[in-house]
Formats: sequence, structure tokens, C-alpha cells
Amino acid sequence: MKKVLLASTALLLTAGFASAQSIELSGSASAGLKYNSDADQFDLDDNGVPDDTITINNEIFMTIAGSGATDTGLQFGAFLTLDQTGGLDDQEVFVSGVFGTVTVGGIDPATDGFGIADVGYDGIGIDDVAEQYKNADAFADVHYAYSAAGLTFTATYGWEGVTDDAIAVAVEYEAAGFSGGIGYADATTSTVTAQAGYSQGPLSINGMYSDWDAGGEGYGIDISYDVAGATITGVWASANGVAADPGDGVGDAYGVGFAVPLGGGLTVAGGIGIIETDFSVTDVDDNVFAGDGSKTVADLGLTMSF
Amino acid sequence: MKKVLLASTALLLTAGFASAQSIELSGSASAGLKYNSDADQFDLDDNGVPDDTITINNEIFMTIAGSGATDTGLQFGAFLTLDQTGGLDDQEVFVSGVFGTVTVGGIDPATDGFGIADVGYDGIGIDDVAEQYKNADAFADVHYAYSAAGLTFTATYGWEGVTDDAIAVAVEYEAAGFSGGIGYADATTSTVTAQAGYSQGPLSINGMYSDWDAGGEGYGIDISYDVAGATITGVWASANGVAADPGDGVGDAYGVGFAVPLGGGLTVAGGIGIIETDFSVTDVDDNVFAGDGSKTVADLGLTMSF
Amino acid sequence: MKKVLLASTALLLTAGFASAQSIELSGSASAGLKYNSDADQFDLDDNGVPDDTITINNEIFMTIAGSGATDTGLQFGAFLTLDQTGGLDDQEVFVSGVFGTVTVGGIDPATDGFGIADVGYDGIGIDDVAEQYKNADAFADVHYAYSAAGLTFTATYGWEGVTDDAIAVAVEYEAAGFSGGIGYADATTSTVTAQAGYSQGPLSINGMYSDWDAGGEGYGIDISYDVAGATITGVWASANGVAADPGDGVGDAYGVGFAVPLGGGLTVAGGIGIIETDFSVTDVDDNVFAGDGSKTVADLGLTMSF
Repeated sequence: MKKVLLASTALLLTAGFASAQSIELSGSASAGLKYNSDADQFDLDDNGVPDDTITINNEIFMTIAGSGATDTGLQFGAFLTLDQTGGLDDQEVFVSGVFGTVTVGGIDPATDGFGIADVGYDGIGIDDVAEQYKNADAFADVHYAYSAAGLTFTATYGWEGVTDDAIAVAVEYEAAGFSGGIGYADATTSTVTAQAGYSQGPLSINGMYSDWDAGGEGYGIDISYDVAGATITGVWASANGVAADPGDGVGDAYGVGFAVPLGGGLTVAGGIGIIETDFSVTDVDDNVFAGDGSKTVADLGLTMSF
Repeated sequence: MKKVLLASTALLLTAGFASAQSIELSGSASAGLKYNSDADQFDLDDNGVPDDTITINNEIFMTIAGSGATDTGLQFGAFLTLDQTGGLDDQEVFVSGVFGTVTVGGIDPATDGFGIADVGYDGIGIDDVAEQYKNADAFADVHYAYSAAGLTFTATYGWEGVTDDAIAVAVEYEAAGFSGGIGYADATTSTVTAQAGYSQGPLSINGMYSDWDAGGEGYGIDISYDVAGATITGVWASANGVAADPGDGVGDAYGVGFAVPLGGGLTVAGGIGIIETDFSVTDVDDNVFAGDGSKTVADLGLTMSF
Repeated sequence: MKKVLLASTALLLTAGFASAQSIELSGSASAGLKYNSDADQFDLDDNGVPDDTITINNEIFMTIAGSGATDTGLQFGAFLTLDQTGGLDDQEVFVSGVFGTVTVGGIDPATDGFGIADVGYDGIGIDDVAEQYKNADAFADVHYAYSAAGLTFTATYGWEGVTDDAIAVAVEYEAAGFSGGIGYADATTSTVTAQAGYSQGPLSINGMYSDWDAGGEGYGIDISYDVAGATITGVWASANGVAADPGDGVGDAYGVGFAVPLGGGLTVAGGIGIIETDFSVTDVDDNVFAGDGSKTVADLGLTMSF
């Protein structure tokens, strides 16, 4: 699921402050119930009793972001995002100018932005089945992006790993309701991913396809419709061949969900879906267990942004 | 000791900001000396030398709290509190309306609010002897509270544990100097706890009693008197039967302390007491050692709120 | 390298707020490339391949600081600094008055402030060779400082360790371009350290000398020159006898670097140097390997403050 943590509602603390420097707080949170029909077949938390099929879940992300600008127009900044464990969710340092934006820190390969929608307040993982191949086994140490006239070019390079050097590039275009892109990620293995979407009035449709040279392919589609203040979303995803992530497996997954903004940054959302893949699950002691090839997953809860 | 981290002095960063959303910083800290007459009989930190009877201690709690409201009057928010280790002290997500307040995250059983005062700037643990039974072995996944006309009803429910489902309920009433309440916590074992207090002019008195069905009972009383800008507090606690917490043990404990607000959020406070229980102590390698049945504990330091 | 995290540009969030309390955010960050000619002789991260000689590095420090004042003029405060791992970088609680300033928390011996400059955006470690003796094996639980008329007296005391009680004292003087000081740190071993510096117009020069009674001495000098908006710095350091820190070793080290402020808090800086000491390196499994007695180290990057 795409997470946009630096919400546009971020509170600028420096209104009226003359300096070119500022430091800002922003945040988001969620809380709700999650359902997994398979959970009671395992004891993944190793506490001696079967896991609960319904669990309660909450997440909090609080971001401290500093930024500034030089007299010559160079922009720069850094942020630190903490999660509900008090630990790190993300951290980045960037510098930006007419040449584009260079970012280091907790960055992902250039192809990480491709994907389809998930459903639910927190996400039930339908999209993961299609998205497991997009980054191949690439990693990234430095990230570069340049945007002009609706076109965004992104490249990442990583050399601090055990594999060969890792590169990833992506080109994305967005205009007049259309969005589309193509990307390539390469380290020991490589993947080509393409994505296209279109929205008109209340209807949005978006699809992706990944071809992994180690023998797997993933694809999926999401359709959203806005009606009476709510958004209804349906998503279908599939993977063939070899799984890149055993936790996702290969096979089909599909789901449907809704989101209703209640105003002030609060949204109620939920989703339900079926995952029919040969996924496996891993317990806290790293033991791996095969799933039974089909599970029903659902969630229902609130999301909030500050 | 009750910790109120979201102080009423919390700095609202959004003064004059039109949105229904805000994000706030607040904090508290303390620093001082702690004395434990028994400490040099052990090497609980396993560093090869006896522990110091006098140690220096400091705590810092910094809270990032987001909140908002919908047009229909629903209030919501989340907070993250970090401590002096940079780690998590607490985290919660809540939604509030005419129906009451529902909270998830780092929550305690409904009976956790009962207790007596401790003495000292940081607390020397006299109250723990009486309070060890109040939550039985209950735990909580979701917390509900409703207040009206001085009456507060609180209920918690937990199902994600190794024991039976855990419930706890409490009813508290506060009016005209009187405060009182009764609560029940139940999982594998159960406890009934009652509390009553009264304050008039400079004098406050408060007592509690817990009856644990696994064969223990705890009770205690605290008395405070305000004089010349200072508050003097005396506290006595006792436990009979089986200890719920071996670290507290059964037997008597009593202490006396003072607190003097110096203005601006700074307070100097201290306390001294004797704990005459069959407590045990645990070292960093989880070895358990019996205490000698009586120890003198004291502290003296500063507390500050921001 | 000296790190000043509570920058004078710290954003005071309480403008117009009547209370004597405030809570502030401030921060700094850096990003750049680091070079170590020896790195590919080891696999210190134990990932099965030789380490990279060029690595990319970023650091982020975000500080939440609370402060207040009493009506009688006592000042107090506490801060928590998080780093790019989401973990703790530093934490302190202080109280300040006509008697001076008392600080507890993550404090260092009184002699920790002595040192010479390093070069580079993040520092390449030339200064460490000279500075390894200054604190002897002292540690600190409480820190006291008093300043008047350009003179600063600092003392620290520590008793919560495995060694004898640890004390350290330092006296520093600063006036009319001159700065100098002398300090003494003592626990199981002891060190006397002296430092003197002078700056006039664009030129600054600074030197230090440490004599460790366990048989080592360290000394070093740094010279800086401001030209055309840039600062050029040269540094030389040396250690004789026994190394206090095997990671630094004994022998010579020297380097040269530059820093160019770009405005708004952004600075580009870099440095290159040679370390010719008998240092050793330690891998993630605590295995120790001898260095080859000479390595070239360099860095180049950006620093920013918020």
C-alpha cells in the first residue's frame, strides 16, 4: 500500500517566521479490527495458544521534518518518522534544485512507486500478490528524481549489498486523467514493470504488469467509484510461476472495499477479500508453515491525519 | 504512581489556525537522587561490584499528539510518548463522541486507575504494595469510557492473550470534595477493588481495598496536608496472603514525603519510607534473590512539566 | 567532532505565549560520501563480501526540548535528541541559577569539551588520535558548570561504575580572540589535558596536549583560514606510547578540509587525510583485526541545520 506520510495538511509551524529554515510536525494514525480466516491454524506469536482470527490493530506515524532554502534557490531538508513502537518508520535527507532531487536515507528502488490499490482501512494485502516482483532483488543507496511537464524520471543506484550493483529506473507520465509508467529494476535478477491508469468523473481504473526474469510474473487491476461521498474500490491481483515473496505466493487474490471521509481528516474504511495463493507464513522463531491455499481476509477501522 | 503525560499546559501549536486538525508537543522530566538501603547486598546490574545504595536518576517524557474533529462533532486523536531512552513510553489512538470515548493502543485494564498516592519526586514504591492486586491478571485490547454528571463508567476487554478473555469494569464518582469508585477485573483470576477519598480545605484523605480471589488482599491509605505552599503526604500500605507481584511481596510499607511547587512547572519533592514485605529482586539475567524483609527507601529531586 | 545540536536557530514555538514554559523543535542532518582505502581488506558487517571503500552515509538529529523558569529566576529544562535510527542520540535534564548549572542524563566527563577540529562534512577521525586520552577512564553521573567574566569552571562526578569514583574538572577562559583551558580527569587512571587557541581576522589556530598516567600522550593542532566565503582547515594529530582506544592506535594522522556555507543553514564540506597509526578494527561479531598501519580517509557531503 502506498503510504503518504508527509500529508499536505502538514502543519507549518513557521507561519510569519522570516528565516528560510523551518521544522514541522505532521502525523497519521489508524485503528481497527482485522480478520484472517486462517489465523487459528497457527501460533505465529508462539504463546502456546492458536492465534486469534480477529485482532485489534493500531498504527501511529509522527514525522519531524526540517527544511530550508539557500539564497540561490537550492532546497534541502530531512525528516524522521516514528511509529507506534517508538521506533523508526522512515528517514530521509534530500537536496533539490533545477537539476532535480537527490535523496538518501531509507529509500527504495525507483520502481517501488508502481502498484495497484489495496482495500481496507489498513490494507488486507491483495495488491502484494501483484507487486511482489516489481523491485526484483534491487536495493538503493541513492535516489534521483526529475519532473517536468507531467513527466517524472526516477533512478536509484545501490552498491552496498552482497549482490551485484543494483540499479532501477522509472519513467512516469500524468496528464488529463491519464497516468502511466514503465520501470526496470536490476541486481542479480531483473524485472520490467508497466502501469497505466485513467480516471474520469467518479470512475478510476488502474492496472500493472511485472515480468521477473527469474520466472515469475505479477499483474493486477483496481477500479474505484465515488458515490454519495464514499469511494468503492475493487481489486484483483494474480501471480504466475515462481513467487518472489513466499509470504505472497502465486495464484489469485481479489477484494472489495469502501472509504468514507468524515471530515477533519477522519475516514472510516473497510475491505474484504480472498487470497487463493500457495503462500506460507513465518512464526516469531522463523519457522515456516504452508498456508492452506485460500484464506478470507478483512478489516474495518478508522484512519486519521494531523 | 499515576502519570499524567498530556499535561493541561500542553502547548497548542495551532493558535489561530482555522483547521480542525492540530498537532501538539508536551513533556515532563525529573531528576534526582534515589536511596535503597538494601542495594549493596546485590549486583543486579551484573557489573561485578555491589550496587550503589544512592543512585542518580532522570526521566524525560516527550509527547507528540495529533487531534481533530469532524463537522458532526466526532473528536479523534493519537499520541506517541518517547522516554529518556528514545524508546516508547506510551501510545494511544482514540475516537470520542456522544457515545463516550473508545481508545486502543497501550491501554490498561479499567481498574488500573485505582490507587493511593506514593511519596517522593519519582516515587519510592509504597503504593505498589497495596495496588499489586487491582488488575488481577487482566489485560486490555480496547478501552471504553463514558462520563456524565460526575460519574465515569470505564470498561476494557482483551482477547489477544494466553488466558481466557479478560474484562474489567469500573464506576467512579466525584463531587463536592468526595471521590469514590468500585471496580472488577477478571481473566484467569479476578479482583474486586474499592476506593474512597475526601478533601476539605488543605486536607485530603484517600483509601483503597483490593480482594484477589487467588488468595491475596491489599489495602492502603494516603493523607495529604497543604501548608505554606508545600504539600506533606503520608502513606501506609499493606498486603496479606499471596503476593500478586513477588517484587512487592506481602507485609507492610509506609512513608512520608513533601512537594513544593517553585513556579513555572518546576517542583522539588522528596520522600522516605520503610518497606517491610517478603519482596524479592531480579537481576539483569533474570535470577531472583530474596530481599531481607525490610528496606529503607528514599528519594529527593525535581520534577518539571513543559 | 563537537556537535552543537540545540542550534541558535531553534524555532521557539511559543511566540506570544504568556507562560514561562516552552517546548521547542530543532534539528540537523547530513548526507554524503565517505572513503576508506582499507575498507575492502575486511568484512566488518559480516555479509560475506569485502566492505566497500566508498559508502554513502546520512545522519539526522531531531531534538525536542522543553524549558521553563520560576518566578525567582531559576531556569530548568530537558531535551531528547533522536537520530536517523529512531533511537536515542542524547538526553539531559538541567537546572540553572546564580549557583551555576547542574545537568544529569547523557553527560560526559568535564574534560570532554577539549579537542581539536576534524575535517570533512561528517569528520574523518583525524582528531580522535589526539583526543583519545582526554577523559582517561572517567565517567560522569552529574555535571556542574559555572561561568563568569569569560571564565568557565566545569566539574563532573560519577560513582555508578565498576571503577573507583570518577572525577573530572576543567577551567576554560575565552577573551579577545584567545581561548585556553586545562583539565584533569581521574578514575582508575588519570589524564591532564591543556588546550590553547587564538584567532585574528580570517586565521584561527588551536592546539591540545594530553598526558595519560597509564603511559600515553596525545597532541594535535588545527589551523583554519577563511577565504572567499569558504573555510580551509588543516589538522595534525599524534599519539605516543600506549593507545587508550585501540581503534585509534598510536602514531600520526593529518588531514585538510574545506567548508562552504551556501546560506539558509546548508553547508557543503569535505576533507581528506592519512592515518598512520597501529589502529585495529572490530567487526559486528566483536572480532578484532589489525589495520595495516596506514589508511587514506576522505569524505564529501552536505550538512544542514533547522
